Amino acid sequence: MSVFQHNIQNDSEVIYADHAATTPLAPEALEAMLPYLAGSFGNPGSHHTMGQQAARAVLSARERMAELLHCRPREIYFTSGGSEADNQALLTAADWGRRQGKHHIISAALEHPAVLRTLGFLESQGFSITLLNPNRKGWISVEQVCAALCTDTCLVSIMTVNNETGMRQPVEEIAALCRTQGVLFHTDAVQAVGQIPLDFAEMQIDLLSLSAHKFHGPKGIGALLCRKGLTPVPLIRGGGQERGSRAGTENVPGVVGMAEALRLSCAGMEASHAHIARLCDRLTDGLLRIPKTYLNGDRACRASGIVSVCIAGIERDMLLLLLDQDGICASAGSACSAGALQPSHVLKSMGIPDELARGALRFSLGRDNTMEEVETIIRKVTEIVRTLRGTQGGMG
Amino acid sequence: MSVFQHNIQNDSEVIYADHAATTPLAPEALEAMLPYLAGSFGNPGSHHTMGQQAARAVLSARERMAELLHCRPREIYFTSGGSEADNQALLTAADWGRRQGKHHIISAALEHPAVLRTLGFLESQGFSITLLNPNRKGWISVEQVCAALCTDTCLVSIMTVNNETGMRQPVEEIAALCRTQGVLFHTDAVQAVGQIPLDFAEMQIDLLSLSAHKFHGPKGIGALLCRKGLTPVPLIRGGGQERGSRAGTENVPGVVGMAEALRLSCAGMEASHAHIARLCDRLTDGLLRIPKTYLNGDRACRASGIVSVCIAGIERDMLLLLLDQDGICASAGSACSAGALQPSHVLKSMGIPDELARGALRFSLGRDNTMEEVETIIRKVTEIVRTLRGTQGGMG
Repeated sequence: MSVFQHNIQNDSEVIYADHAATTPLAPEALEAMLPYLAGSFGNPGSHHTMGQQAARAVLSARERMAELLHCRPREIYFTSGGSEADNQALLTAADWGRRQGKHHIISAALEHPAVLRTLGFLESQGFSITLLNPNRKGWISVEQVCAALCTDTCLVSIMTVNNETGMRQPVEEIAALCRTQGVLFHTDAVQAVGQIPLDFAEMQIDLLSLSAHKFHGPKGIGALLCRKGLTPVPLIRGGGQERGSRAGTENVPGVVGMAEALRLSCAGMEASHAHIARLCDRLTDGLLRIPKTYLNGDRACRASGIVSVCIAGIERDMLLLLLDQDGICASAGSACSAGALQPSHVLKSMGIPDELARGALRFSLGRDNTMEEVETIIRKVTEIVRTLRGTQGGMG
Repeated sequence: MSVFQHNIQNDSEVIYADHAATTPLAPEALEAMLPYLAGSFGNPGSHHTMGQQAARAVLSARERMAELLHCRPREIYFTSGGSEADNQALLTAADWGRRQGKHHIISAALEHPAVLRTLGFLESQGFSITLLNPNRKGWISVEQVCAALCTDTCLVSIMTVNNETGMRQPVEEIAALCRTQGVLFHTDAVQAVGQIPLDFAEMQIDLLSLSAHKFHGPKGIGALLCRKGLTPVPLIRGGGQERGSRAGTENVPGVVGMAEALRLSCAGMEASHAHIARLCDRLTDGLLRIPKTYLNGDRACRASGIVSVCIAGIERDMLLLLLDQDGICASAGSACSAGALQPSHVLKSMGIPDELARGALRFSLGRDNTMEEVETIIRKVTEIVRTLRGTQGGMG
C-alpha cells in the first residue's frame, strides 16, 4: 500500500456530472497503456529494440489518431495537454504573422484562459488583439469575424465548443472565411474532440488543440494539429522530438492511451451523442422548472453534454457544496477558474449580470451517466434551491 | 487486446543497459498511480469531492518530494519533464537578469540540448552566452566559472551529472560562488536526482530541473525547483495551476508516480549506489581490456551508472546493432541525439577527436542490473569488436 494513497470515495456513491473538467480514463485506454507502463518502457529516441518498440507505439498511435481526425500523421504534434497546444498554436501563428508583417489577432471573450492569457502575452509583444463578444446565447457569428478582419490580421482563434455553455461555434464557416482572406485559423477543440465529428482536412483549420483527458484519455497528454506547410514554433527546445517542434522524451503510455481513448470515443460517438443529448434535454427541462432559472446558451447549438443554468438569488458555492454532500459532482464553470469567486468571464461576455452569474451551475454529462442519475440531480437541485431560498429570505 | 499492442520483446531476454535514456517504471510507482488512473480521476481544480481527492494527492506528492529534496513544497513546480524544466529555468533566470539589466549567461558545452538550444534562443533575444569547455575528462572547474563571471552575468547553468559520461560537476562550489556574486545558479539535475544525495536548501541552488522517468518514475512528468523569492516565468499560460507558473490540468497519476519513484530511489540510494558502482568498476575494467579502448571521463568523478568508452576503429552504429541483436540495449550517447550521425557534442567539447568519437559506446547501469549481465556485456563487446576489427582490416 503506497503512502500516497488516500481514502478514495467509492465511485458508486458519486454522480459525476463534471465531464467538461475531466473524464474518467476509459478502461480500454488504461489497458492499452499498461504494456508501456509496466514492460515496454524504452525511450523512442533509442535505436535499440526497447527504444524501437516504444517508437513504433508512438508512430502507430499517431497514425491511428490521424485517421480518426482526418489529418496527416505529420500534422500531429504531441503536447502535454490542451493548454500547451493552445499556447503553441498562438505563438506559431503570431510568428507567422510577424514574418508577414501582420500583427492583428481576432479572438473571442469566451475563450479558455490558455488562449486569453497567451493573447495577453502577445499583446505585450506588440500584437493588437480584437476580442469579439458573443451574443446573449454565447455565440460568435461569422459576420462578427468578417467585420473585424483587416489587412493586418494574421490569425483568428475561435473555440469549437465553449467549455462553460457547451455552445458550438460556427468554426467551419469562420475557417472558410479565413482561408479566403489568407488569415490563419486556430480552434481550441478541447471540448469537441471525441464528442462531435471533426474533419481537419475538410474544415480548412490551420491549427487545432486537443486534450486527451477530456475524452476519457489520460491526463498530461494532448496534441496540436498543425496544417502541413506551417511548422509549430517550439515552446520547449532541446532534443529533436516531434520533428524539432517539441523537445522532451515522448510520453509513450500517454500517447498510446490518448489514441485508444480517441478510437473508442469516435467509435461510440453517434450512440453516445444521442444518449447524452437525451440526458441533457431532460436535465434542462427539469432544471428550468425551478423558478427564476435561466439556461445559459441555447439548446439548438449545444454540442456536448453541458447544461449550464443561472439560478437567481442563489450563491453557487453553497449550492455546489450541498450537491457535493449529496454525492453530486458539478461545477460553477471551468475547473481552471474554480478557485476564483468572480463571476465567469464567459457568462459576463454574454451580458449576463454579475448578480445572476453568481448563481451559475454547470453540469457536464458523459456517456456513462444514466437517466436515473439525471432525475436524482434534478430532484436534489430543486430541493436545495428551495431550502436555500427559504433560509435566504423566501425568494422564488 | 488493444490495437496498439505490438509484439513486445520478453524483458527476460534483454540486458537493459541504457538507464540514462530512460528507466523502467518501478512497480511500486505504478501501483501508486493506478488509483488515479482507474478510480479517482478528478481534476484538482474542481471543488467537489472527486476534485479534492486529486488535489490532495498532488499536495501529498509535492510535500513528500519536498522532504526528499530538502526544499519547500512551494518551491516545486511540476512540469511535463526535464526539457520543459530546463527551458523554464533558463527563461526565468533570463527574465530576472533583464530586470537587473544583466544579459550575460555562463554555461558549458557539455550541457543537454534542452539547455543549449534554449541558450541559443536567448542569444537571439540579445543575451550573450559563454560556453565553457570541459577538460579532457569532461569536467568543468569552479575556477573556469569564476574567470568567466563579469558584472553583466545574471546566470550560471551547469549540469549536476553529465548524461553521456556520468561525470559529476562541482555544482556545490559553483553554486556557492554564484551566491556570493549575486548571480543565479541553475543545474540540470536530470541524471542526478534519485541517484546521488541532493540537498536543495544547503546547496544554494536557485533553479534545478528533474525528470521522473530517469529515476524509475513515469514519462511525461518532471519538476522545476525554484528558490523561494524567484517566480518561474510561465512557458504555458492559462489556468492558475502551479501558482500561475504552469497552466494545464495537473497530471495527477504522473505526479503521484514521480513522488513514489523518488521515495523508492532515495530509500534505496545507498545500497543501489554501492551495487551500481561495483558493476561500473567491473564493466570499466572489462571494456578497457579491449585494445585501443579509452574511458570517457574519469572513474573518480563518476556519479551515476554510466560507463562511456571510445573504441578505436569501430563504427558505433554497427557495434550497437550487433549488441542489440544479442539482446543488449546500449547507446552511443544521449537518446535525444541518437538519430544524428555526428559525433557527440559532449565528447567533442572534451577534445576527443571525431574519428575516435565515432566509436563511442555508452552503457548506463541501473539498480536491477546484475554482475552476470555485466560479464555478458563485456564478453559480447569483446567478441563483436574482435569480429569488426577483423573484417575492417585487422585492427587491434
